[in-house]
Amino acid sequence: MEVPYKTYLNENEVPTSWYNVRADMKKKPAPLLNASTGKPCTAADLEPVFCSDLVKQELDDTTAFIPMPRPVVDFYRMFRPSPLIRAYFLEKALGTPAKIFYKFEGNNTSGSHKLNSAIAQAYYAKAQGLKGVTTETGAGQWGTALSMACAFFGLDCRVFMVKCSYEQKPFRREVMRTYGADVTPSPSMTTQIGQKINQEHPGTTGSLGCAISEAVEAAVTTPGYRYVLGSVLNQVLLHQSIIGLEASIAFKKLGVKPDVIIGCAGGGSNLGGLISPFMGEKLRGEADYRFVAVEPASCPSLTRGRYAYDYCDTGRICPLAKMYTLGADYIPSASHAGGLRYHGMSPILSELYDQKLMEAVSVRQTDVFSAAQYFARTEGILPAPESSHAIRAAIDEAIKCREAGKSETILFGLTGTGYFDMTAYQSFNDHTMGDFIPTDEDLEKAFAKLPEIG
Amino acid sequence: MEVPYKTYLNENEVPTSWYNVRADMKKKPAPLLNASTGKPCTAADLEPVFCSDLVKQELDDTTAFIPMPRPVVDFYRMFRPSPLIRAYFLEKALGTPAKIFYKFEGNNTSGSHKLNSAIAQAYYAKAQGLKGVTTETGAGQWGTALSMACAFFGLDCRVFMVKCSYEQKPFRREVMRTYGADVTPSPSMTTQIGQKINQEHPGTTGSLGCAISEAVEAAVTTPGYRYVLGSVLNQVLLHQSIIGLEASIAFKKLGVKPDVIIGCAGGGSNLGGLISPFMGEKLRGEADYRFVAVEPASCPSLTRGRYAYDYCDTGRICPLAKMYTLGADYIPSASHAGGLRYHGMSPILSELYDQKLMEAVSVRQTDVFSAAQYFARTEGILPAPESSHAIRAAIDEAIKCREAGKSETILFGLTGTGYFDMTAYQSFNDHTMGDFIPTDEDLEKAFAKLPEIG
Repeated sequence: MEVPYKTYLNENEVPTSWYNVRADMKKKPAPLLNASTGKPCTAADLEPVFCSDLVKQELDDTTAFIPMPRPVVDFYRMFRPSPLIRAYFLEKALGTPAKIFYKFEGNNTSGSHKLNSAIAQAYYAKAQGLKGVTTETGAGQWGTALSMACAFFGLDCRVFMVKCSYEQKPFRREVMRTYGADVTPSPSMTTQIGQKINQEHPGTTGSLGCAISEAVEAAVTTPGYRYVLGSVLNQVLLHQSIIGLEASIAFKKLGVKPDVIIGCAGGGSNLGGLISPFMGEKLRGEADYRFVAVEPASCPSLTRGRYAYDYCDTGRICPLAKMYTLGADYIPSASHAGGLRYHGMSPILSELYDQKLMEAVSVRQTDVFSAAQYFARTEGILPAPESSHAIRAAIDEAIKCREAGKSETILFGLTGTGYFDMTAYQSFNDHTMGDFIPTDEDLEKAFAKLPEIG
Repeated sequence: MEVPYKTYLNENEVPTSWYNVRADMKKKPAPLLNASTGKPCTAADLEPVFCSDLVKQELDDTTAFIPMPRPVVDFYRMFRPSPLIRAYFLEKALGTPAKIFYKFEGNNTSGSHKLNSAIAQAYYAKAQGLKGVTTETGAGQWGTALSMACAFFGLDCRVFMVKCSYEQKPFRREVMRTYGADVTPSPSMTTQIGQKINQEHPGTTGSLGCAISEAVEAAVTTPGYRYVLGSVLNQVLLHQSIIGLEASIAFKKLGVKPDVIIGCAGGGSNLGGLISPFMGEKLRGEADYRFVAVEPASCPSLTRGRYAYDYCDTGRICPLAKMYTLGADYIPSASHAGGLRYHGMSPILSELYDQKLMEAVSVRQTDVFSAAQYFARTEGILPAPESSHAIRAAIDEAIKCREAGKSETILFGLTGTGYFDMTAYQSFNDHTMGDFIPTDEDLEKAFAKLPEIG
């Protein structure tokens, strides 16, 4: 059978449980620590911040399959299954014997895979009888996804949007407003931590770490609210496993096995979700795969960070996580476009990387956009800057295959579309885009502030 | 069998010929007229402007099925088949017994159905050995689609973009540039007609009619170039029949027959494509359907226009077409958002409407955006302003069904997404959006300039 351009699962083939890769890890990811006691977080520590069902998922490292609630399955049908696409045109343009597949998560209004976890988190908030949720957003994909999910369940949605994004991306903001969300530029004067940051750094344009602190404060000080997060956490990787589960079923239908699986990595939500079921096979000794995390050279947490306990937010009000980190104060250069700008990395992915079960590479921004443009012109999809990191690495693998005459099967995650990132594309088209790579001194300075815990 | 949320055809079920509805019309649409002789256009009249194969398709009103070239079938696989979606969530929100389906054409980077014809026209230009093509774009969807198609075949693409759009939508322009297109604001100083319009109307922000004149002039004066158009023409409706053909096959698979088929109508490309195969059944007496064209109250060519020969462009350098028209100088209010702003209507649709085989309604802009927001929040897709005209009419039909207790099956065309239309959404969110409806006096003034031909 010739592999079709696009493979969609039928509704009855779509998974109805998420897969929890921690269940198959012999050495588990390190637990979150309570910042005041230095001890592993209990459910009681986390429940003032997160919904109770999500706390359970966060702490559960033994249950392999967790059923999706029926309303989540129904909502997934709106925009899932996502297609597994054979990149015939890209292969031909590259003249490579490699077979390239990508799992495309961008065909929904949030423009990315973020909706997979947003709808789950909104559902649990609604089921708990909450009034609303708070969150932060940087590039805007997560905030958009959460706005859509909250509109669906009739929940209030308060988004703290990193100020420079808020100002540079009025259209992202407007999509969120169309879905009824309340969007505040961060740091704001509506929270104590925001006021403090504004006082200490007048004129600051904000960072993801600040916005997290503000969103958490707003959640714990507003009755009937909880905080939700779009990446990094175990629960988010759990929800995102739908990506890998669908891909795995589709490959089995096609009778194809990928050799290498590539994904961009910021906080790790997409990569963790994409690789989870394949990693499970590897952990159980059923199959072998190469896994490659691709991160920006301007924010290289896996390739140049430390594996240590660190704060998840600038305000240092969240629990501590053991992860590859550049330090909670690290902010990538303002010239860095799009997401993938978080200082740390999912504890699950950090542990898998530390166990050498996964590789990591970093790529420069201009190389990323050149891959993005090449991909847009050959495969027809204008990719998000984040996703284009994976495209760059996949193209590089395919070129290696051409040079070595090897016919490997490459799978990469195409997390989303770049329709709201045209300012970055413009700077690439105008040849004004630059590359920023932190020096060793920059990083040492950031590492010096790591907490002495764990 | 329960109808699934989304129905995709398999690759082997996808049509490989377009359907030409003119073949089944007893009374054919009136021919284009040569403006200087007043006689029906011959192939020789049209070939300096259009590719030869496209001229053949334009003039052929007897061949029912025209095979798609293989490279076009392949390209379609990149972004087609498009899903036929059962709007379960919308039905539930409306509390209607009606069954609502929509054919969603927005899941590609052009953001609309326009790519269906762009790739066909680019293919024929390439097959003829041309160097490039010219076109105009208003809202930007057509220009984006053509840029993508030209990038794929390695053709030069020169787009004249209506100046106010060029300035208000820098991101649309940037997408076209990313695909390698050359984008010029119209009226420009690069054509004689542009210079003339700029002299006569200093400071004008342009119109679709002006941009067409400039694009045609640029094509006929540049060796190796032809002009291509995204709507109105018979060839465009032919290519767009893929929408209706896929929908028709999907309905047969599901064992469902729509009662009423609704589409937005500007030049008629989407509506004509969507209804063609169903209209063919009606014309052959095999089945009956209601067809509803939905147009903006601010540009009401079918509901308030004259059925007469008129110029297709402001510069009056194109052939004359018999169509429902508001007059070649008619420009909808600047407050009108998005496309659907052409002064005329496809000659095929005009003739079908004149024969009372199709109905037409006009809807106000604020009612359109209120439907758009409602749809976004219930069905998860942020629709284009154009597409939202069809949503408005479909919701109105579904409410009528609820009031009458009738369980009709409604199909509407969701032509695209609104990601580049957030300025319009913002004015709706801010309650600053207005409605503009031309007075009878406005229209009489425009009708007075209709040519005395035909």
